[in-house]
Amino acid sequence: MDNVYAPGKNHLFVPGPVNIPDPVIRAMSRNNEDYRSPAVPALTKILLEDVKKIFKTTTGTPFMIPTTGTGAWESALTNTLSPGDRTVSFLIGQFSLLWIDQQQRLKFNVDVVESEWGQGANLDILASKLAEDTAHTIKAVCIVHNETATGVTNNLAAVRKILDHYGHPALFLVDGVSSICALDFRMDEWGIDVALTGSQKALSLPTGMGIVCASPKALEASKTAKSVRVFFDWNDYLRFYKMGTYWPYTPSIQLLYGLRAALDLIFEEGLDNVIARHNRLGTATRLAVEAWGLKNCTQKEEWFSDTVTAVVVPPYLDSVEIVRRAWQRYNLSLGLGLNKVAGKVFRIGHLGNLNELQLLGCLAGVEMILKDVGYPVKLGSGVAAACAYLQNNIPMIPSRI
Amino acid sequence: MDNVYAPGKNHLFVPGPVNIPDPVIRAMSRNNEDYRSPAVPALTKILLEDVKKIFKTTTGTPFMIPTTGTGAWESALTNTLSPGDRTVSFLIGQFSLLWIDQQQRLKFNVDVVESEWGQGANLDILASKLAEDTAHTIKAVCIVHNETATGVTNNLAAVRKILDHYGHPALFLVDGVSSICALDFRMDEWGIDVALTGSQKALSLPTGMGIVCASPKALEASKTAKSVRVFFDWNDYLRFYKMGTYWPYTPSIQLLYGLRAALDLIFEEGLDNVIARHNRLGTATRLAVEAWGLKNCTQKEEWFSDTVTAVVVPPYLDSVEIVRRAWQRYNLSLGLGLNKVAGKVFRIGHLGNLNELQLLGCLAGVEMILKDVGYPVKLGSGVAAACAYLQNNIPMIPSRI
Amino acid sequence: MDNVYAPGKNHLFVPGPVNIPDPVIRAMSRNNEDYRSPAVPALTKILLEDVKKIFKTTTGTPFMIPTTGTGAWESALTNTLSPGDRTVSFLIGQFSLLWIDQQQRLKFNVDVVESEWGQGANLDILASKLAEDTAHTIKAVCIVHNETATGVTNNLAAVRKILDHYGHPALFLVDGVSSICALDFRMDEWGIDVALTGSQKALSLPTGMGIVCASPKALEASKTAKSVRVFFDWNDYLRFYKMGTYWPYTPSIQLLYGLRAALDLIFEEGLDNVIARHNRLGTATRLAVEAWGLKNCTQKEEWFSDTVTAVVVPPYLDSVEIVRRAWQRYNLSLGLGLNKVAGKVFRIGHLGNLNELQLLGCLAGVEMILKDVGYPVKLGSGVAAACAYLQNNIPMIPSRI
Amino acid sequence: MDNVYAPGKNHLFVPGPVNIPDPVIRAMSRNNEDYRSPAVPALTKILLEDVKKIFKTTTGTPFMIPTTGTGAWESALTNTLSPGDRTVSFLIGQFSLLWIDQQQRLKFNVDVVESEWGQGANLDILASKLAEDTAHTIKAVCIVHNETATGVTNNLAAVRKILDHYGHPALFLVDGVSSICALDFRMDEWGIDVALTGSQKALSLPTGMGIVCASPKALEASKTAKSVRVFFDWNDYLRFYKMGTYWPYTPSIQLLYGLRAALDLIFEEGLDNVIARHNRLGTATRLAVEAWGLKNCTQKEEWFSDTVTAVVVPPYLDSVEIVRRAWQRYNLSLGLGLNKVAGKVFRIGHLGNLNELQLLGCLAGVEMILKDVGYPVKLGSGVAAACAYLQNNIPMIPSRI
Repeated sequence: MDNVYAPGKNHLFVPGPVNIPDPVIRAMSRNNEDYRSPAVPALTKILLEDVKKIFKTTTGTPFMIPTTGTGAWESALTNTLSPGDRTVSFLIGQFSLLWIDQQQRLKFNVDVVESEWGQGANLDILASKLAEDTAHTIKAVCIVHNETATGVTNNLAAVRKILDHYGHPALFLVDGVSSICALDFRMDEWGIDVALTGSQKALSLPTGMGIVCASPKALEASKTAKSVRVFFDWNDYLRFYKMGTYWPYTPSIQLLYGLRAALDLIFEEGLDNVIARHNRLGTATRLAVEAWGLKNCTQKEEWFSDTVTAVVVPPYLDSVEIVRRAWQRYNLSLGLGLNKVAGKVFRIGHLGNLNELQLLGCLAGVEMILKDVGYPVKLGSGVAAACAYLQNNIPMIPSRI
Repeated sequence: MDNVYAPGKNHLFVPGPVNIPDPVIRAMSRNNEDYRSPAVPALTKILLEDVKKIFKTTTGTPFMIPTTGTGAWESALTNTLSPGDRTVSFLIGQFSLLWIDQQQRLKFNVDVVESEWGQGANLDILASKLAEDTAHTIKAVCIVHNETATGVTNNLAAVRKILDHYGHPALFLVDGVSSICALDFRMDEWGIDVALTGSQKALSLPTGMGIVCASPKALEASKTAKSVRVFFDWNDYLRFYKMGTYWPYTPSIQLLYGLRAALDLIFEEGLDNVIARHNRLGTATRLAVEAWGLKNCTQKEEWFSDTVTAVVVPPYLDSVEIVRRAWQRYNLSLGLGLNKVAGKVFRIGHLGNLNELQLLGCLAGVEMILKDVGYPVKLGSGVAAACAYLQNNIPMIPSRI
Repeated sequence: MDNVYAPGKNHLFVPGPVNIPDPVIRAMSRNNEDYRSPAVPALTKILLEDVKKIFKTTTGTPFMIPTTGTGAWESALTNTLSPGDRTVSFLIGQFSLLWIDQQQRLKFNVDVVESEWGQGANLDILASKLAEDTAHTIKAVCIVHNETATGVTNNLAAVRKILDHYGHPALFLVDGVSSICALDFRMDEWGIDVALTGSQKALSLPTGMGIVCASPKALEASKTAKSVRVFFDWNDYLRFYKMGTYWPYTPSIQLLYGLRAALDLIFEEGLDNVIARHNRLGTATRLAVEAWGLKNCTQKEEWFSDTVTAVVVPPYLDSVEIVRRAWQRYNLSLGLGLNKVAGKVFRIGHLGNLNELQLLGCLAGVEMILKDVGYPVKLGSGVAAACAYLQNNIPMIPSRI
Repeated sequence: MDNVYAPGKNHLFVPGPVNIPDPVIRAMSRNNEDYRSPAVPALTKILLEDVKKIFKTTTGTPFMIPTTGTGAWESALTNTLSPGDRTVSFLIGQFSLLWIDQQQRLKFNVDVVESEWGQGANLDILASKLAEDTAHTIKAVCIVHNETATGVTNNLAAVRKILDHYGHPALFLVDGVSSICALDFRMDEWGIDVALTGSQKALSLPTGMGIVCASPKALEASKTAKSVRVFFDWNDYLRFYKMGTYWPYTPSIQLLYGLRAALDLIFEEGLDNVIARHNRLGTATRLAVEAWGLKNCTQKEEWFSDTVTAVVVPPYLDSVEIVRRAWQRYNLSLGLGLNKVAGKVFRIGHLGNLNELQLLGCLAGVEMILKDVGYPVKLGSGVAAACAYLQNNIPMIPSRI
């Protein structure tokens, strides 16, 4: 079936799609089912309740849409805004850039707030824009929680604080694609109006389900939003929710059972433990990068991402070659640098269902590759730094029998 | 994992999602992969070539979009038409109705040509509309090849003939969701401009891939079509096709390998043999319905569908009860009647990867259910009629060793 | 992977190996594990408790041996008997013949009690042998509960009654390969000393685990039994049971998880319901055979088997051709006639995880094949007879949501 | 299903059962099939041919027995020897001990040639025994190629040379359980009469198939060998080979398809490349052990095993605690010390379908564990030593597209 073969497991360290746990692969290995039977709605009903927990919301309404993150973006925007509406959007890397591009193509009037790639969103500019906007022409503030291209995590609580400070009614729309289920995320507490993620990220599923969660305020906005939409229209879902059949069109049966299994694992580990594990793996990765004498693309500690680390290579190296070699020689999948940082960074994704020894194998591989391409790394140095930290910080796995 | 259990296999006879062959389930039982590695584009490239064969096109450009049939509709329409454009659309059942609804919500100006449910598209009206439209205000003719709600197959060759007769330049857009890979379908020969299907239908995959195929004329139209679109925009795909990376956003790795396996099976059986098998199973089903003394919802033989049969129940019965009982007592999944025919018909889907004995088990089950609900069926009569036909018409399976 | 391909599912109706339920296939789709970790012994401990339930024993000691039914036979014999020991064994078909052959090759002194194939064990002869054997030279009575070659079920309660009547201390050794988990089986109540089955029969697992259950009396006998044995020696297991590590050599991790899943399904359905379902499917099959005007190989109703029906074909037909055609034309797997009944019977296995519509598909297939080979069957007649019975006797599946 | 859960993949580094490649897991994820259909014998026939390649034999006859390594031993012995026969057997660790125990329980007269655990077979003693045995009372020389308990590889070519030197006709029986498919093994060239392995070792399958390969001389011996055997009797296989049905009793369908997939992977990589990879991983492991300042249990380089390394812990440490902690804290499965070396060594299995980064993750884990239990290891030291070697010795994976 596969056109390629290399012995052993592929080491998947791109920041998505990520490793799928074996119990989830098993749960999805199944025939189709009639989604109009009583069984699928019953399953859906429970999933819609459980999925709210990963957003930390009790008041939000989730939509599990057969699409990708890009489609989830489109669903968030078209259901809440009308063509010509003014949005404030932060450009800090490739994925925030793409979201802004989408906003523009959907005919919104976007105030782009740009930062240097490697920095977080410039919230001072947000504050001054909101201060000036006494007429409330700004309809939405759009922010990517974790910019996957640069490994930068924005401070959502600070965004909410600024909105509240100015008593501004703009909707607060958040791309949580590479954060939800991995980083601290609190939809209700932070007053987020639409939050969204994709199944192939920290949920550790295949691609194919965009999960969008709307606050009551966002749902209210959807009643008057004039953006043209059909496939992404929340209203079709809401009608079927009311009927108890839940699906306006055919869902992936496999992804529903996969989501059930994925949530079971997350809840068994404990969402807070999952987040702590991501912090542990992120910290270990950063310590290794430091030990190698390389720079993190992220310029300040406050923006460090626990789901992806973009590593800056010295000017005399091409990060494309590092990624190519990782795959070709070590069966290791690393992330390329994108757009402005193409050739300049490679990325280690450390999100999803992953443990310490998997990461250490990856780090050892990176050391060999760095040496391969002529960077004077001390072999073992990054692993040693990571181990020294991990060895003191991994908790005992709770009794496994 | 499952909340439900009943011994033995579920008998899945809804007209989609359909049974997935075991080799396809196996091929999809896998971890994620980096879709930016060299392997996934290499696989994609071959798939794009192979997928054209099921449309019978050499000049079309296929798009494998992470969406459902509804999204595929939206992709077909928004890439070729502009708001306000006039379309002619045939309303003959629930799915053509939904597509028309989508066209209207997307702000097209739809000439709805309605037929009684159970009849095919009224092509005389199409002819008269085209005859009158010397100004070529009609931009597209939209037709559902096989209306899944009533089991009616429209005559696409006839549509093309009429368009040609009047030399009308309207685009010819075809929903092939429940036909492609099961019924005779010839994109190039019939001059179809956009054809589309969904993975969970005759391709026998899970839901999640909408395959849209555009003729050169459709691609040309997409350059000027003003419908707002991002996720469904062909142009993003075309840019990535040119780069050789193929994907503007993350595909489902599992569906790609699944599609590879599904196409392998179809090509091994032979697409024409697959179509002949569907005809055989469709004929057998219709003979059984006749033997039971029940009416086919489809009013004329010319419209008989080889992928789904809608069976009309006597007025004193409720088809909802038949479908409920099939599932609850016999582990048999039948299709409900929808909208205008709700309660009046139940549907037997006989598309996808299916064989004769599977169908006969279903037919035997339907006989028992009919008796259960008080219809005076002669047990064995439908099976006997189907067997009499099949016994003379099943070809030997080509040497299996 | 497969050298062969035919559309749809294979219809597997041999009397073993049987259909594996999808949840069991999923549970087994996994990597190896260290069987010396704490997890595997913990799982094993529970399985050893649960497996006793399918034998209906509380006092027996089960051994889950990585072998087939033939190995399980050898384990039963060599652990309880010494070369030269006298056994009474009933020859009523191919599998009882093979077991007798094994007993002879293991150097036991076998009193073969032969019946015509199609009849049950001649218990009158057993009675007279026991009556004569006041010296207790008979060390064991060996009986196949259900002869898979002829579809004959022996009366174990009657055997026990005869042993008790004569107060004879002979061990009571039972091959339950095609009965346990499908037919009424009561190890403790019937005073069975060794009972055994194979994973690929009514447990509906892959081949590879022979389960042997020993009464306290059998365990006692094993202390003095002089048959040479190592791989099959219970004593090695007992030592590891005591240590709590359970395995003298490497078990199949996959079969352990598979057994867990299989037992879960059986317990969820209810062992008595499973047995009732087998009776229902067996009865339906026999009614079909009768309707076709064919003879059941089993000569009297008291011996009718609910797990396999051997159908006698008219003298002018060759059953080999029927089985070949079933596979080649209808993707239907039937059992051949073996040895004395080769060419004269074909066998329909109706054991394991199976439901009504699956069986009806098989019966419809058999009708077509019979017609194919020139037998004047009335198409639909067998299905009608089976449906008439089933329609009145299938219980509602307990609420599935 | 699992009673236990820990995030990420389990790191399986016991010397068996080993990691199963994903394509093999997929190939085995299937329903049962009729093993008497034409398909299974056709598959079996090819497998019997292909399996000879891993033994490097053209004249041998393989038997794929549904059993474990222990059963394969029993098959090798009972088919070639008679009770009372004299064998020479080398005791150098737990598995050679168990084989000797089996030989004694099977009533052979065993000359045990013992070495200190950590040393190879004492071939000088063999030489002197053969020299003395001019009457040819020695019927077989039995040797474990790779003693899994101590990581000692014996020199089979040297054994053959000694036998030839004395022109001694003794059968040459080899346990290749942890060597075949991983270490250099040449059945024909080295004149081996019976070689055997188990599916769960370097073949990287689940447990359940013991593969025994017999030379023409061994087959000849089987005609007169008087050991009692039924399940393990080669003669039953040979009869079914002749009939072309191949199986005297039910094989595991899943293991057959799994073996097909496993051999495909091995042949695609190239058997010699597989062996070279094992040497590379073995060397890297030994370099790490040296860097940690720990001793290899294997006393001389000539006996170093490329499939398992037994690491001696300092006297103040208990290796049981190391293995326990590896599993409980790091999801890492290491091998325990057995019998004489219990508590004194832990074992790293590096056989089967495994790559460099997987091993490096394991080595990093071992470093942390050593530190955890109070051994003054320099973190990163073993990884650095392994990387330094690997970085210069891993070949480019042959073009993967």
